[in-house]
This record gives sequence, C-alpha cells and structure tokens, in this order.
Amino acid sequence: MDVPSPRGVEIERKFLVAELPPELAAHPGQRIEQGYLAIAPDGVEVRVRRRAGRATLTVKSGPGQVRTEEEMALDERRFDALWQLTEGRRISKTRHEIPLAAGAVAEIDVYDGALDGLLIVEIEFGSLETSERFAPPPWVGRELTGDKRYANQSLALDGLP
Amino acid sequence: MDVPSPRGVEIERKFLVAELPPELAAHPGQRIEQGYLAIAPDGVEVRVRRRAGRATLTVKSGPGQVRTEEEMALDERRFDALWQLTEGRRISKTRHEIPLAAGAVAEIDVYDGALDGLLIVEIEFGSLETSERFAPPPWVGRELTGDKRYANQSLALDGLP
Repeated sequence: MDVPSPRGVEIERKFLVAELPPELAAHPGQRIEQGYLAIAPDGVEVRVRRRAGRATLTVKSGPGQVRTEEEMALDERRFDALWQLTEGRRISKTRHEIPLAAGAVAEIDVYDGALDGLLIVEIEFGSLETSERFAPPPWVGRELTGDKRYANQSLALDGLP
Repeated sequence: MDVPSPRGVEIERKFLVAELPPELAAHPGQRIEQGYLAIAPDGVEVRVRRRAGRATLTVKSGPGQVRTEEEMALDERRFDALWQLTEGRRISKTRHEIPLAAGAVAEIDVYDGALDGLLIVEIEFGSLETSERFAPPPWVGRELTGDKRYANQSLALDGLP
C-alpha cells in the first residue's frame, strides 16, 4: 500500500528532457519570469516571480535549515520596482504540466533567454513508493535530482552548467 | 533661503556619540530588532525588522542602482518564521529621537547584543544648507557619514569595526 507523503513535503525527481513529448501540444503552459533579489551564503534566497499575471515575493530557507517558505503577493508596481533589482540573476521559462500514470505530474520547463534550449522536467509523486517505482517514459533524459548546478538559483546566477 | 530637499531624498549625516546627551532621558526610545535575510553582491538587501510591535520586510537597492526601497508589513507568524533565517546577521538597538535646532532631528541608536556599547547618531536635516552649516553639539563625536563599515548591513555581518 502506498504511504501518502506527509503534509507539505514534496516528493520530486528532476530530469533533463531528451525530446519534448507529443502530449506537450495539448498542455499550453504558463510563462514564468523569476529573478533573485539576493541569496545569502547559507542559502536563504529571496526571489520575485511572475506567473500567469500573478506576482509574488518568496523567501526560502537554505539547505541546512528548518524548511521555511514564505510567499507574499505583489502588485504590478511593486513587482516592476523589485524586478529592476534582479538584473543578472533572472530566469524565464514556460511551464507545461502533464499528468502521468499513478497520479504523478510532470512539470516540463522550456527555458528561454540566456538558458534557451534547456529543457527540464520535475516529476511530483503522490508517495515515496510511486517515486521509487517510476519508469521514465522515453522522452525523459538524464536524472538531475540533487544536482545543485541545475537548481533555479544556480541557473540564474551561473547559467548553463 | 533654504532649498527644501527633493521629495523622498534624505539629507543625513552620521556620527559616533561621544557621550549620551542629557536630553536622552526625556525621549524614551523604541527598541528595533533587525535581521538580514540576504544581501546580494551588488548591495541589494532584504531585511526584516520589528519596531514598536510593527514588523516589516524591506528590500533596498544597492549603492550603484536607482534608489529603490519597498517595505511590506508582516504579521507576527510570518515575522517569526523569517527571523529564524537571519541568524548571524542581526542587530538590535534602542532608538531615541531628539529634536535639534533648525528642524533637524537626531536619531540616537544605543546598540545592544553583539554590538553592546556602540552609540551612533544620525542627524536628518531639512535642507542641504542646514546640513552643511550644522555645528555639532559637544556630545557628538567623530563623523561616520559615508563610512561603509558603520552601515547597518556591515554591522550585522561583520560586527564592530
């Protein structure tokens, strides 16, 4: 029997996309613009993001800390003012969500701008067991789970690995 | 005739306090706790602050950028969650505001915690001319205006200069 994931804990694996799957056309995707205001040496990050017209500021804890994520809504004026402060620390991409078998969901990110050509899929699972049993479809490439070079933070600061 | 300062531009000078002025007793002061979530290499800073029961998150631009300062109110739960992420990047002090001659206001900061013993005064002037003509009272010590080591950011990260 599947053990459901504890509330608020995401079970995710991350892969390169070898080729875009045919289902993509049926899932139009949302453009995401994301810029980092600042990142502390201990990994605390503060970013602003606009997705489907909704702008937010998010503070996330670093890897060695109790997991904290606080998100605040921003109006357009404030988003624009803060976005100016993220120059050189931005990523933009279009995210397509595609349902897979066993309740898993694939989030395919098609990067543009400085990261044009990069294709990453994050797959969210409903339980640890479905995550471990996952048989990647043929369009899924090399696994990136845990590879810090492919974290959004690193991609924004350092570009393509 | 005094030229009033342009809207939103602060005319300030900063000094060490040689000895606390006798007027201090008449101006009780407010305790300020301030912690930095993250500071970018270009100087963009994100801090949380609690002053007189009011908590805020503030994003400020760095020195080379168009001046931007955005402040957002935080409720207690959110302040507490974010405060945990500022460990090792905090200052606390009690601020006393004392009116001086010619409309100038002295903000005297009495630091405690790791910076215990540090006394700094920032004087806000109504115009560039009163700022330049300012004759410091005897309790005012060495000028610190422009000395980055005494910026709150540096004091929080690096401690006493």
